[in-house]
Amino acid sequence: MDKILVLHGPNLNLLGKRDPEQYGVLSLEEINKRLEAYGEEKGIQVETAQSNLEGELINSLQRAGGDCVGVVFNPGGYTHTSVALRDAVEALGVPVVEVHLSNIHGRENFRRRSLISPVCEGVVAGFGAVSYQLGMAALLHMKMER
Amino acid sequence: MDKILVLHGPNLNLLGKRDPEQYGVLSLEEINKRLEAYGEEKGIQVETAQSNLEGELINSLQRAGGDCVGVVFNPGGYTHTSVALRDAVEALGVPVVEVHLSNIHGRENFRRRSLISPVCEGVVAGFGAVSYQLGMAALLHMKMER
Amino acid sequence: MDKILVLHGPNLNLLGKRDPEQYGVLSLEEINKRLEAYGEEKGIQVETAQSNLEGELINSLQRAGGDCVGVVFNPGGYTHTSVALRDAVEALGVPVVEVHLSNIHGRENFRRRSLISPVCEGVVAGFGAVSYQLGMAALLHMKMER
Amino acid sequence: MDKILVLHGPNLNLLGKRDPEQYGVLSLEEINKRLEAYGEEKGIQVETAQSNLEGELINSLQRAGGDCVGVVFNPGGYTHTSVALRDAVEALGVPVVEVHLSNIHGRENFRRRSLISPVCEGVVAGFGAVSYQLGMAALLHMKMER
Amino acid sequence: MDKILVLHGPNLNLLGKRDPEQYGVLSLEEINKRLEAYGEEKGIQVETAQSNLEGELINSLQRAGGDCVGVVFNPGGYTHTSVALRDAVEALGVPVVEVHLSNIHGRENFRRRSLISPVCEGVVAGFGAVSYQLGMAALLHMKMER
Amino acid sequence: MDKILVLHGPNLNLLGKRDPEQYGVLSLEEINKRLEAYGEEKGIQVETAQSNLEGELINSLQRAGGDCVGVVFNPGGYTHTSVALRDAVEALGVPVVEVHLSNIHGRENFRRRSLISPVCEGVVAGFGAVSYQLGMAALLHMKMER
Amino acid sequence: MDKILVLHGPNLNLLGKRDPEQYGVLSLEEINKRLEAYGEEKGIQVETAQSNLEGELINSLQRAGGDCVGVVFNPGGYTHTSVALRDAVEALGVPVVEVHLSNIHGRENFRRRSLISPVCEGVVAGFGAVSYQLGMAALLHMKMER
Amino acid sequence: MDKILVLHGPNLNLLGKRDPEQYGVLSLEEINKRLEAYGEEKGIQVETAQSNLEGELINSLQRAGGDCVGVVFNPGGYTHTSVALRDAVEALGVPVVEVHLSNIHGRENFRRRSLISPVCEGVVAGFGAVSYQLGMAALLHMKMER
Amino acid sequence: MDKILVLHGPNLNLLGKRDPEQYGVLSLEEINKRLEAYGEEKGIQVETAQSNLEGELINSLQRAGGDCVGVVFNPGGYTHTSVALRDAVEALGVPVVEVHLSNIHGRENFRRRSLISPVCEGVVAGFGAVSYQLGMAALLHMKMER
Amino acid sequence: MDKILVLHGPNLNLLGKRDPEQYGVLSLEEINKRLEAYGEEKGIQVETAQSNLEGELINSLQRAGGDCVGVVFNPGGYTHTSVALRDAVEALGVPVVEVHLSNIHGRENFRRRSLISPVCEGVVAGFGAVSYQLGMAALLHMKMER
Amino acid sequence: MDKILVLHGPNLNLLGKRDPEQYGVLSLEEINKRLEAYGEEKGIQVETAQSNLEGELINSLQRAGGDCVGVVFNPGGYTHTSVALRDAVEALGVPVVEVHLSNIHGRENFRRRSLISPVCEGVVAGFGAVSYQLGMAALLHMKMER
Amino acid sequence: MDKILVLHGPNLNLLGKRDPEQYGVLSLEEINKRLEAYGEEKGIQVETAQSNLEGELINSLQRAGGDCVGVVFNPGGYTHTSVALRDAVEALGVPVVEVHLSNIHGRENFRRRSLISPVCEGVVAGFGAVSYQLGMAALLHMKMER
Repeated sequence: MDKILVLHGPNLNLLGKRDPEQYGVLSLEEINKRLEAYGEEKGIQVETAQSNLEGELINSLQRAGGDCVGVVFNPGGYTHTSVALRDAVEALGVPVVEVHLSNIHGRENFRRRSLISPVCEGVVAGFGAVSYQLGMAALLHMKMER
Repeated sequence: MDKILVLHGPNLNLLGKRDPEQYGVLSLEEINKRLEAYGEEKGIQVETAQSNLEGELINSLQRAGGDCVGVVFNPGGYTHTSVALRDAVEALGVPVVEVHLSNIHGRENFRRRSLISPVCEGVVAGFGAVSYQLGMAALLHMKMER
Repeated sequence: MDKILVLHGPNLNLLGKRDPEQYGVLSLEEINKRLEAYGEEKGIQVETAQSNLEGELINSLQRAGGDCVGVVFNPGGYTHTSVALRDAVEALGVPVVEVHLSNIHGRENFRRRSLISPVCEGVVAGFGAVSYQLGMAALLHMKMER
Repeated sequence: MDKILVLHGPNLNLLGKRDPEQYGVLSLEEINKRLEAYGEEKGIQVETAQSNLEGELINSLQRAGGDCVGVVFNPGGYTHTSVALRDAVEALGVPVVEVHLSNIHGRENFRRRSLISPVCEGVVAGFGAVSYQLGMAALLHMKMER
Repeated sequence: MDKILVLHGPNLNLLGKRDPEQYGVLSLEEINKRLEAYGEEKGIQVETAQSNLEGELINSLQRAGGDCVGVVFNPGGYTHTSVALRDAVEALGVPVVEVHLSNIHGRENFRRRSLISPVCEGVVAGFGAVSYQLGMAALLHMKMER
Repeated sequence: MDKILVLHGPNLNLLGKRDPEQYGVLSLEEINKRLEAYGEEKGIQVETAQSNLEGELINSLQRAGGDCVGVVFNPGGYTHTSVALRDAVEALGVPVVEVHLSNIHGRENFRRRSLISPVCEGVVAGFGAVSYQLGMAALLHMKMER
Repeated sequence: MDKILVLHGPNLNLLGKRDPEQYGVLSLEEINKRLEAYGEEKGIQVETAQSNLEGELINSLQRAGGDCVGVVFNPGGYTHTSVALRDAVEALGVPVVEVHLSNIHGRENFRRRSLISPVCEGVVAGFGAVSYQLGMAALLHMKMER
Repeated sequence: MDKILVLHGPNLNLLGKRDPEQYGVLSLEEINKRLEAYGEEKGIQVETAQSNLEGELINSLQRAGGDCVGVVFNPGGYTHTSVALRDAVEALGVPVVEVHLSNIHGRENFRRRSLISPVCEGVVAGFGAVSYQLGMAALLHMKMER
Repeated sequence: MDKILVLHGPNLNLLGKRDPEQYGVLSLEEINKRLEAYGEEKGIQVETAQSNLEGELINSLQRAGGDCVGVVFNPGGYTHTSVALRDAVEALGVPVVEVHLSNIHGRENFRRRSLISPVCEGVVAGFGAVSYQLGMAALLHMKMER
Repeated sequence: MDKILVLHGPNLNLLGKRDPEQYGVLSLEEINKRLEAYGEEKGIQVETAQSNLEGELINSLQRAGGDCVGVVFNPGGYTHTSVALRDAVEALGVPVVEVHLSNIHGRENFRRRSLISPVCEGVVAGFGAVSYQLGMAALLHMKMER
Repeated sequence: MDKILVLHGPNLNLLGKRDPEQYGVLSLEEINKRLEAYGEEKGIQVETAQSNLEGELINSLQRAGGDCVGVVFNPGGYTHTSVALRDAVEALGVPVVEVHLSNIHGRENFRRRSLISPVCEGVVAGFGAVSYQLGMAALLHMKMER
Repeated sequence: MDKILVLHGPNLNLLGKRDPEQYGVLSLEEINKRLEAYGEEKGIQVETAQSNLEGELINSLQRAGGDCVGVVFNPGGYTHTSVALRDAVEALGVPVVEVHLSNIHGRENFRRRSLISPVCEGVVAGFGAVSYQLGMAALLHMKMER
C-alpha cells in the first residue's frame, strides 16, 4: 500500500493544548488520527511526524523521498526562513503539498514570503485542520492523474 | 437550496481552447460542469461566471453578497493589482476562497503578492482544475462548522 | 448654469446598504441628493455617476471634460493602482478634487500612495460623506478666484 | 463658547511677505483674521499660533488638549519628519484636522509621506488659504455629529 | 489577405481633439487611416480598435488571436499596471509589438516599468504617430522572415 | 557626590495626566521622585529634566557632559529621527543608557529604528516606569566596573 | 517556590572560554551561578539552559510554558532569523524578557532587526553579563505588579 | 548630403561571427552595408563605427555632434551603467535613437533600466538587425517633420 | 557694507572644547574670528550665530533673508533630517552655501543624504575649519559675477 | 600531525545518491575519501562531518576550534540564513574557507547573499567536488605562510 | 616646485564650445589657464589632463601618485558608476579633492550617489569653474597644515 | 600546447609597487611569472595581460575566445559595474574563472554584487596571489573532465 508522510513543523505539537482560540480545539494527535482514517478510506497509509528542529524535518523529508509517494508538509515558522528545507523539498523526487492552518497572507509582512512554496506542487492555507485534509486530497488527485 | 458562486477572472475563458500544455485539456465549460455536478452531490447550487473586466467581476461579487453563501474566486491577473476587487471581497459578508490553477509562488516575482488573499478565508493554488474543487470543499467545511 | 460632475468609483454603490458602521448610514442616493441640494443653493448643477469599471470612469471623466467646470472624484480602490485614470484626469482641462470617505493614510500601506493626487487640484479625506461637500466647496472657491 | 486652535508650523510666518507667487498674497495675519471671522459667524472662538520650533508646536498642542474642542494644524515641513509631533497629536484627546496650502502629493517624493496624517481625523490639501477654512468646516461638522 | 490588429488603449481616443501640443495634431481616426493606407500598400488588412476598458482590450486581443497574424498594441496607462493584459498577450499565439507615442523612459518613474514588454516581440516608443507605423513595419519584417 | 542626569524627551510631561491606560498612573514627578530616592539609596545625586524641544535636550546633554557621570535618556519621539541628538550623545564623554516605557519593537515600523541606540552603552525598553530604574542600575554597574 | 528559566542561545557556551575581550571574563557557569544566587535572594528558583540548536530552544521554551512564571532569553544569532522561535515565545503564556550582552543596534545592519522583540515584554541590551540580571529584575517587577 | 552616424557599442563586433542563434547570421559588416544601402536610397550618407571602449563611444558621439544630423545608437552593455554616455548624448544637439537587437525588457532585471533612454528621442528594441533600420526610419521621419 | 551670515547648527558650540582629535583644536569663537577677519579683508561684514534648536536656525535664516547678501550654513545633524530647514533655505531669496567640517560622504549611510543640498548654491565638505572659508570665498565669487 | 575539519551542511548527505545530474556522480563518502587521501599526501589529517542540523554544525565548529588548524566548510542552505553559524565561524580562532559545489551567484536571488563569507578567509564556488580540494589547498597555503 | 594634477573626466572637453547656458562661457583651455595662473601665484606647478576614457583617467591618477602632491579631480559622469576609479583614488597616496561644476545633489537621483567622495579628502560642488579654484585652495591649505 | 589567458583588471598593475600591506609584496610581474611556471609544470601555456580600460579587457577576452582554452580573470573594480564585460564573458565560448585577491564579501556593500560571477564557471576569492593559482587549477580540472 502506498504511503504518504504528513509532516508538522515547529510549535505544532502545541495544537489543542494551549490557547484553543488561536490553535483550535483539535490536538495534533486528533488531527493525525483524522488523516489516518481519511487515508484508510482512500487506501493509502499515512505516516505522521512532528519536530521543532529544522534539521530533523530535513531528515524526515529525506527518508520520505525513499519510501513515500508524496508529502503533506506544514513547515510552520520555517516557511519563511529556511533555504535548507527548500533544498530538501526540491531534491525530494516526490510531490510535496504545503499546508498552513492560518491564512499566512493576512498576517505579518514577514509571513507573506514562503521560501518553500516555489518548490512545492501547490499550497492550501487558511482552513485550520481542514487544510491538511485538502492537501491530502490534492496529493491523491495528482497520484491518480499520473 | 444554498447557492455558491464560482467566479473566473480574466483570460480563463481560454481554458482548453488554446495551448493545452499550459492551460490543461479541460475547457472552462467542462470545469464548470464538474463543479455543478460536485455541488449537486453535496446539495448545493453552483452558479458560474467569467469576465475579463475588473468592474464586472466586482458587480458579480456584489450580487453574490446578496444571494450566495460563499464564493470560489480565481481572480487571474487581477490578483496582483486590484485594490478595487479586494475592497469588493472585503465588503462581501460571505466567505470567499481564492483559487489558482498554477502555483503562483513559483512564477514571476510580481505574481507573488496577492492583494486578494488577506481578505479571503484561505487560498488553494497549484493543482490545476482540481484547485476549484478543493476550494469548494473548503467552503462546504466552513459552512458545516457554523 | 455651470455644471460639475460628482464621480464615485468602485464599491461606492454599496454605501448605506450594507455594514453601516464601516460605510455610514447614508446611501449613495442620499449623498447625491445632499450634494445636488448644496449645488442648487450655490447656483451650480450637480451631475452624479458611479461605476465599478475603471474604463467607464475614464469615459465619464472624458465627457465631463467637455461640459463641466470641475469634477469631485472619489476613485475608491483605483486610487492606488490606475495610471489610466491618472492620465484621464491629467488630460481633462478642468480642475478635479479628489475625495475619500476614510483617512486613507491611516490604513494599509498600499493605500497610502495615490496615483491620482499629483494631478488633482487638491485632496479632502477622512470626513465621511462630508468629504464630498468640502470637495465641492473647494471647487466653488477655485471657480470664484478665476 | 467653544474654542479651536489653528496652529501654523515652520516658515508659515513668511506668508504674503515674500514671493507672493509661491506663498499667495495673503499674509498669515490676514488668513488668521478670516478664520476668526468665520469662527465668529459659526459661534466658535478661534485661537491662532505659529512657531518655527517643533517643541513649541508640541507645547501648543498640549495646551490645546486642555481647553480646545479641536485643532486645525498645518505642520509644514515637520509633516514628513516628526514622530514627536505625531505622538503629541495622538495623545491630544480632541480631533485634529491636517491642512496644507499646496498639494503635497504633487511635489518631491519626501513630501508624500505624512507622519501626522494617520493620527488625524482627516486631511485637506492643495487649496491655498482655503484649505484652512475647509479644515475648520470639517471640524464643525464633526462637532455637530457628536 | 492577412489581417493585423492595431489596438489603442485608454485615453487615446482623445488624440488630436484636445491639447495638440501634448497629443499631436492628428486625431485617432487620421492615424488609423494612415495605417490602413500603409497596410493596403503592403497587402495587409488593418483592423483598428480603441477602448478605455482593460477588459475590452483583453477581449479584442483574444479575438485577434483567432483571425490576425499580428498585433500593434499601445496599452496606454495599462502598460504599467495590468498583469491581466500581459497574460492575454502571452496567451495570444501571434506576435505583438508594443508602441508608445511618447518616450516612456523619460517620464515619471512609475512609467518606466512595462509589464507588457517582456511578452512582446519588441517595443517602439517616442516617435509620436510614427511609432505605430514603425511597429507595423516591424511586424511585416517578422512575417517575411518566417 | 557623583551626579547622573535623567532626561525625558517630548510628550513625557503628560505621564499620568491623561490616558492612564496608555501612559500609566504615575506622573513624571512621581517617577522622578522614585529615581531620586533610588539614587539617594545608592549614594548618587539624581538630576531630572524634561523638554519637548530637540535643541533643549541637546543643551541638557551638553551640560551633563560637564558635571555628570552618566545619563539615563528617554528620547521619546526623537529616538527615530534625530541625528543631532545622536551627535550630542556621541560627543558626550560619559555613558548614556537609552530607556523606553514601551517596547518600541512591537509598535509601528518607523519606531523600530533608533538613531540613538548605536551610540549608547545599552538599551532598556518595555517595562514602563521600571525601565528608568533598570537603566539607572545599569549605569551604576558600569560605574563600579571602572 | 516560583521558577524562572534563563535560556541561552547559540555560541553562548563559549563565554569566558575564548576571546575574553569580546566575550568577557565570566564563563556561562559563573553567570548562571550569579543569577541563581540573585534568585535565591529574591525567593525565586532559577533554572538555566543553553543550546546551539534552534529546535531545542523551542523545546525549552515550551517546557517553561508549563512550569515557569517567566523567561529571561538571550536568543543569540537566532534573534534576527527565527520565526519559529518567535512563534514559540508568542505561544508561551508567560512573560519573556529578551537580553543581549552587546548593544545589537551598534553592530552590523542585519543584527538590528529582532524578530523576537515584538513578542517579548521588553528588551535589555548592551550591559554584558549585567543584562541578564537586569532582565531578571524586570521579570520580578512584572510579577509583583500583577 | 546629410550624414547620420550608426554607432555600435561593446561586443557588437562579434555579430555573425560566433553563436549565430544568439547573435543572428548577419555580421556587423553586412548590417552596416544594408544600412548604407538604405541610406543611399533615402539620400542620406551613413557613417558606421563600433567600439568596445566607453570613452571612444563618447568621442564618436562628440564628433557626430559636429557633422551629423542624427545618430542611431546601440549602446550594448553600457546602456544600463553609463552616466558618462548619457551626458554625451544629452549634450549632442542632434537627435539620437536608441536601438537594441533583443527585447531588453524580457531579460535580466539589471537590463531593464536604461540610463540612455531618457535623453534619446525614442527607442526601438527587439527586432534583431531590423531594429537598426527602423531606428534610421524614425530619424528620417523626424528630419522631415522639421 | 554688505553682510553675510555664518550659521552653525547643533553641537558645533563644542568645537575645540572637547575631543580635539575629532573636533579640531580651534574653538567656534576662533573660527568665527578668522571668518570676520577674512570678511574685513574682503570688505564684507560677517555675522555669526549658532544654535542647537532647529527652529532658531530657521529664525536666523529668515532674518538673514532680510539683511544679508548670502549665508554660509553648516546645518550639522539637521542636514539629513530637516525638511523645515530646507523650506527655510528655499524661501530665503539670497544664496546659501552648505559647508561641513567632515566629508559626510565617507561616514555612516544616513549622513549621505542631505535634504539641504538641493536648495543650496553649492557644497563644500571635508576640509575642517577651512570649509567655512572656502564657502565664504564661493559666496564672494557669486556676488562678483552678478 | 595537524588536523583540519571538512564540514558539510544540510542535504549534502544526498550527494551521488539521487539526481546525479544535479548532484554529480560522487557520493559524499567518495568525496571525503579523496580529501583524506589528498590530506595524507600533504601530511595533514582530515576529519569529516555532515549534519542537517544548524546547531550540530555549530557544535562541530566549536569542537574544531579546539583541535584543528583550519576548516573547509560548505554551509549549504544555511549559507544565506544563519547568523548563528556566522557567529560560530567568527569566534573560531582558526581560518575557515567557504566552499560551494555550484556557483551560487548564478542561481536564485536569495542565494547571492552569504552571511558566512564576510567572516571566512575566502570562498571557492562553482567547481563541484573540486571546490573542496581547492579549498583545502587554500588552507594549506595559508598555513605555510604563517 | 611641487606639482598638482587637475584632472577632468568625460565630456568636459565640450566646455564653452556648445550650449554656453549649461556649460558656461569658459572653455576648458581657459579654465586650465586660470588654474595655472593661480598655481603660479601660489608657487605650485599645475598639470592638466582630460579624457573621456575611464581607464585613461585611472592611468593619469596612477602617474600623479608618483610625481604630484595632490589632485583636483572632476570625475564627471564616472562619479556615480566607477568602482575602478574609486580604487585608483584610494590607492593614490596623495590627497584628492573632488570637484563638480554643478550641484549634483540638486539633479537626478542617480547623480546623488558619488562612489568617489568617500575616498577623497573633501568635495566642492556647485560653483561652476570656481569649484576648481576652491578645490585647489583646499589642497594648498592641506599642504600647509602638514 | 593549449593556452590560457590570465587577465588582470584595473589598478592591478600597482601590485607590489605601493602599499605592500594592502597589496602584498609580490608585483604583478612576479605573480605572472609564478603562474607561467605553474603552467609549464602542467603543460599549458600561460598568456598574461593587464589593462585599466574596460574596453581593452573586452578586446582581450574576445581574442582569448579564439585561441585559448580558458581564462582566469580578475575584473577588479569592474566586477561590480560592468554589464559590457559580463556580455563579453558570456559570449566567450570557453570557461572563465573569476578570481579576487581579497574576500570581496567582507568589504563595502557595493562590492558584494558581482555582475560577472553569474556567467563564470566559478569564483575563487580571498587568498591573495594564491587565488590566481587556485583559479588556474580549477580550469585544469575542468579541462581534464571534458
